[in-house]
Amino acid sequence: MNETRFQKQLDFIFEIDKVKNILRKTKLFDGCRFENDAEHSWTICLMAILFKEYSNKEIDLQKVITMLLIHDIVEIDAGDVLLYSAKRDGILDAEEKAAQRIFGILEDDQKSYFYNLWREFEEKKTPEAQFASVFDRIEPILQNYKNEGFAWKQHNIKKHQVIERNIHIRHGSEEIWNFILKLLDVCVEKGYLTE
Amino acid sequence: MNETRFQKQLDFIFEIDKVKNILRKTKLFDGCRFENDAEHSWTICLMAILFKEYSNKEIDLQKVITMLLIHDIVEIDAGDVLLYSAKRDGILDAEEKAAQRIFGILEDDQKSYFYNLWREFEEKKTPEAQFASVFDRIEPILQNYKNEGFAWKQHNIKKHQVIERNIHIRHGSEEIWNFILKLLDVCVEKGYLTE
Repeated sequence: MNETRFQKQLDFIFEIDKVKNILRKTKLFDGCRFENDAEHSWTICLMAILFKEYSNKEIDLQKVITMLLIHDIVEIDAGDVLLYSAKRDGILDAEEKAAQRIFGILEDDQKSYFYNLWREFEEKKTPEAQFASVFDRIEPILQNYKNEGFAWKQHNIKKHQVIERNIHIRHGSEEIWNFILKLLDVCVEKGYLTE
Repeated sequence: MNETRFQKQLDFIFEIDKVKNILRKTKLFDGCRFENDAEHSWTICLMAILFKEYSNKEIDLQKVITMLLIHDIVEIDAGDVLLYSAKRDGILDAEEKAAQRIFGILEDDQKSYFYNLWREFEEKKTPEAQFASVFDRIEPILQNYKNEGFAWKQHNIKKHQVIERNIHIRHGSEEIWNFILKLLDVCVEKGYLTE
């Protein structure tokens, strides 16, 4: 074991622990409190495994899971910004800097590995990135459904915004996107979301 | 999409969210609060990827990660029991029942898949289960190191107990076990752990 390399790996693990204190805009399915980024990542990794059969394309599941495990680490520096916020485009620079700093704790081979996976996820062009993004996006929709539209109501979100911001789900899974469209109708009917 | 099957998959995701409210005996690396099972699982999945080079044997990393994602789900019913507690042997029945109930939410193919992975992890006989167990066990040791032995002191744990209960780490990674042995000496020196 190269001790310098191992120490960098440990320092990375200690640093990314901070995502456990980054709170998201949605609550746990039972509505008791806001979810944090580590918990969110855990859930969507399991979703990717459980829902693999609904992928439009053949995918490398290990790559999908690794992307999902690390996708929100940049929020340690850049923070969690509401999906529907106008500020969202402005955070790309902050996220890029965060990725350089945090993955840069590691030696070059591992820095490049994680940084490239993070970029691939952000660009949503490969089958793996498109499938991973399905779960990043459906978890908050399902949380809003279970919590009577809590975050949608709080931020005055309309159905067309949910569709516009999440329509790329269909590039990863047509079947799941069709389910989400029906679920949004139910949410409007129940008063969780406005038309 | 078979809607009955999909609904069971969603019900499983909603059910396992409860691990986010199962608190462990150790605190986050920054010591601010106790860690929950979902956060723990997220960290150790990333550790398995990051530290793959230290595995004694060739392993299927996707299998390791899936084991780690689900390994603590049984604690929803059985609770988190201190590794060093005498009660620990008595919870095997409760964990078996929990696994049957929770994985049983899914259809048979997925129930068997997750149940068998959970059993494989518990039995620690395959290279994947042995490597996965390394991270389940080193995270709390590292947390104790970062938090000046908080949980060890609280439960009056001695160095020989840490070694006895965790020595199987060496079956997954000799290199990491050797590092842990040195770290425990440092912990004794600093007064975090008693000889």
